[in-house]
Amino acid sequence: MISRQLAGVFAHLDEAENAGIARLCEWLAIPSISTDPAYRVECKRAAQWAADHLRASGLSVEVLPTGQPEGAGHPIVTATSAGDAAYKGPHVLFYGHYDVQPVDPVELWESPPFEPVIREAPAGAGARGGAGVGGGGGGAGRRIVARGAVDDKGQVMTFLESLRAWRQVSGSVAGGVRFTVMLEGEEESGSVNLERFVRAHRGLLKDCDVCVISDTNMLGRGRPAITYGVRGLAYTEVTLHGPNQDLHSGLWGGRTLNPNAELVKVLSELWDKELRVTIPGFYDQVRPLTEAERAAWAGLSTDSAGALRQIGLPPEADRGEAGFSAVEREWGRPTAEINGIYGGYTGAGAKTVIPSHATAKVSFRLVADQSPALVRDAFFEWLRARTPPGFRWEFQDHGTGPGVTVPTDSVHLRVARAALLAATGKEPALIKSGGSIPVAGLLKAELGIDTVFMGFGLDDDRVHSPNEKFEIECYRTGVRAHAALIDALRSL
Amino acid sequence: MISRQLAGVFAHLDEAENAGIARLCEWLAIPSISTDPAYRVECKRAAQWAADHLRASGLSVEVLPTGQPEGAGHPIVTATSAGDAAYKGPHVLFYGHYDVQPVDPVELWESPPFEPVIREAPAGAGARGGAGVGGGGGGAGRRIVARGAVDDKGQVMTFLESLRAWRQVSGSVAGGVRFTVMLEGEEESGSVNLERFVRAHRGLLKDCDVCVISDTNMLGRGRPAITYGVRGLAYTEVTLHGPNQDLHSGLWGGRTLNPNAELVKVLSELWDKELRVTIPGFYDQVRPLTEAERAAWAGLSTDSAGALRQIGLPPEADRGEAGFSAVEREWGRPTAEINGIYGGYTGAGAKTVIPSHATAKVSFRLVADQSPALVRDAFFEWLRARTPPGFRWEFQDHGTGPGVTVPTDSVHLRVARAALLAATGKEPALIKSGGSIPVAGLLKAELGIDTVFMGFGLDDDRVHSPNEKFEIECYRTGVRAHAALIDALRSL
Repeated sequence: MISRQLAGVFAHLDEAENAGIARLCEWLAIPSISTDPAYRVECKRAAQWAADHLRASGLSVEVLPTGQPEGAGHPIVTATSAGDAAYKGPHVLFYGHYDVQPVDPVELWESPPFEPVIREAPAGAGARGGAGVGGGGGGAGRRIVARGAVDDKGQVMTFLESLRAWRQVSGSVAGGVRFTVMLEGEEESGSVNLERFVRAHRGLLKDCDVCVISDTNMLGRGRPAITYGVRGLAYTEVTLHGPNQDLHSGLWGGRTLNPNAELVKVLSELWDKELRVTIPGFYDQVRPLTEAERAAWAGLSTDSAGALRQIGLPPEADRGEAGFSAVEREWGRPTAEINGIYGGYTGAGAKTVIPSHATAKVSFRLVADQSPALVRDAFFEWLRARTPPGFRWEFQDHGTGPGVTVPTDSVHLRVARAALLAATGKEPALIKSGGSIPVAGLLKAELGIDTVFMGFGLDDDRVHSPNEKFEIECYRTGVRAHAALIDALRSL
Repeated sequence: MISRQLAGVFAHLDEAENAGIARLCEWLAIPSISTDPAYRVECKRAAQWAADHLRASGLSVEVLPTGQPEGAGHPIVTATSAGDAAYKGPHVLFYGHYDVQPVDPVELWESPPFEPVIREAPAGAGARGGAGVGGGGGGAGRRIVARGAVDDKGQVMTFLESLRAWRQVSGSVAGGVRFTVMLEGEEESGSVNLERFVRAHRGLLKDCDVCVISDTNMLGRGRPAITYGVRGLAYTEVTLHGPNQDLHSGLWGGRTLNPNAELVKVLSELWDKELRVTIPGFYDQVRPLTEAERAAWAGLSTDSAGALRQIGLPPEADRGEAGFSAVEREWGRPTAEINGIYGGYTGAGAKTVIPSHATAKVSFRLVADQSPALVRDAFFEWLRARTPPGFRWEFQDHGTGPGVTVPTDSVHLRVARAALLAATGKEPALIKSGGSIPVAGLLKAELGIDTVFMGFGLDDDRVHSPNEKFEIECYRTGVRAHAALIDALRSL
């Protein structure tokens, strides 16, 4: 049962789908890689592009500088719709990001990452349904392939196009719902300027009641879901410095310690045999899984073996912290990962060198109620206690954000569930995600508001990897879900 | 007590020193970087230059192609002196190389690497004497700065100039000594064509009794030495493959194993707490150090703390296999080194990736009588036994060469010691080197001959690094030593 007006919006969206996808491709063509200073101007262009789209839907838009000195960071796009006089629902903050990950290794892309293409599903792909934790659902479908297709431009676009459709059909900006939109340009590079921005623009944000973010996945193809928790993150880079110059490994091998080998030895101690992280106190603040939660997750019929098969691994690669299932480890347990490591000669062939230093990028995915800053500091302390004689550490913090778990019985979550039901005809699953959306923790801390994660990605979308894609069916689900959310908010 | 004729040669060498250095600078100006195809013609020019020098001293010279197809490799210069009818000494093979290492990082050179300059010693440099294992001796002196200054054009030049001087003073080619000279152009790129060349030209080489190589160091400034052993080398590259694609560390962290972490854990087991290599059988073929050898090395008053200070490390960084001194570890014990390691994201900033694979370049310095092939195979087997579930290894062999230790009581070594005594007035030390000179092992295997390493470098010559230098005093010692060697050979 959906309202007549929503039915009209759905019809409009069906007609406008190709045009909407074409607009998305235009946005995707802008290489807004936030972590690389070479793409500074492109980030600004991508922000401007989103601002223009929002403005065309009637919202009041600003593109605001960030950073210190002002403008050192990538801009944040803000937009507001005042809401109809009759609107009684919550003031909704929509957060998304227009920046994207780097594209390397670029040689593995089947088409240039910033030349979006619509591609048919590869033959045989996804025939067994969704990869990742969620199985079931239909087969893989047509998709948009480009960097940012699903993370996060494509998902933001589902919201933008719903605003556009409601304006066209109802004549009211955002269908009369009171929105504040905030699109960030540094999510993929640690959101380093976001906290300061939120504090500086408290006036704009202080009346918001709830945040909606579309930057997560469904449970699988055709299995809509609401994510009620995400993990936190503490991302560090550590360099072990030894001799003040590279050494000849013949003349020096055996005479003194090798930074490559010492880094390897120290990092190998980060996990015990049960794959638990060994940093003292690491698990002290972890909120234990409840029996109800474990039972509910077990009932989602997720398919760990199927997900491993999709990435070329056999069932025995289902390995992680002892005593927990794959889903529990991803959604409810913290982990430590070496995201990058490098030291010495890494070119082709042989060079007999002992390097002066070696580096690792080590990050921690955290769950409620772990403090990322405490974990980061404890890690640095743990390393310090393992300094090889005469060597020294250099530490860098590439950003932290707390994990978030929101109540599953709030009015906001109920509205979102109703919207997904209206959009898809299916009751959405309640799931968590192992990824991190630090802004949710920040908004909780700064504004006291919870976040509803209503996402439309799939586990096999190759987020952060070559050939990132967003399936058209998922895009459609997203656009309809946001349109239905607006309808549900109007009805409160 | 030196012969009248040698005294005459010394006098001639003194007069001709500046001219000899000017000739060396001419040779150094030819950028004969063998590993880089862009310098192919320059390598040929450098070979031709050496051929002309040898021809001017009266030897019969050829510049012979190498490689398959013929000429694919860089040429080898051969030259022979038949020896006087009265000559009763050994047929000596002199081996050297005219190719040089690449110059990167070129921005660290204080003068262009192929524009040789004579420079005064930097103020304060080397005031404490030699770096490296050898302390003592005088302060740093005037030096020739250029790529190849000491490795190996400068050292080869000390031999070439001694031939020239003997011809001028005595009228006989090479003072009447029977020599075969072999100058290679691929030493710095793995000597990939040398073994085939030696086999194909067995007729030229089969009568040689002993090889002399000048490509090692003295014990320190003013401390002449003969190197009676070098370590062998087995250089490998190993890649651990996990998932068939890079993964998002949020969505996958904790769900499966991470190739970076698994590589780190496996490699950390390569050494035990005593810094002994843990590969089964690794030490089985190691020739134990004799008490006499250990006593002799201890008596050389090497300065490990001083050498560490030169590379910015405190005395407590004197760490290696338990139970052995720094000198013993470099000269007489094998070692395993991680020369390079890389996996995942290695650019600036943060990327939350679990990589599909991770790679390490691992090499072993070996001592007599270890077989490099056995060690390489045992390492690969050891890795195979540590394959994480569902993962696989990829192995590459970047070359092997056996270690060499020659008898210290041979007639050849006695002649060389006498020559160094005559040249410097000092009894040379008997030392070993931790570096590798694979040609010595090749000549032993193919021709059954030993090698006398009579080298004139210093530990701080910056071999393979920017601002490579050869001190004039070392050059002078080399020229006189080779001249005295010819005199000693004539007297047999």
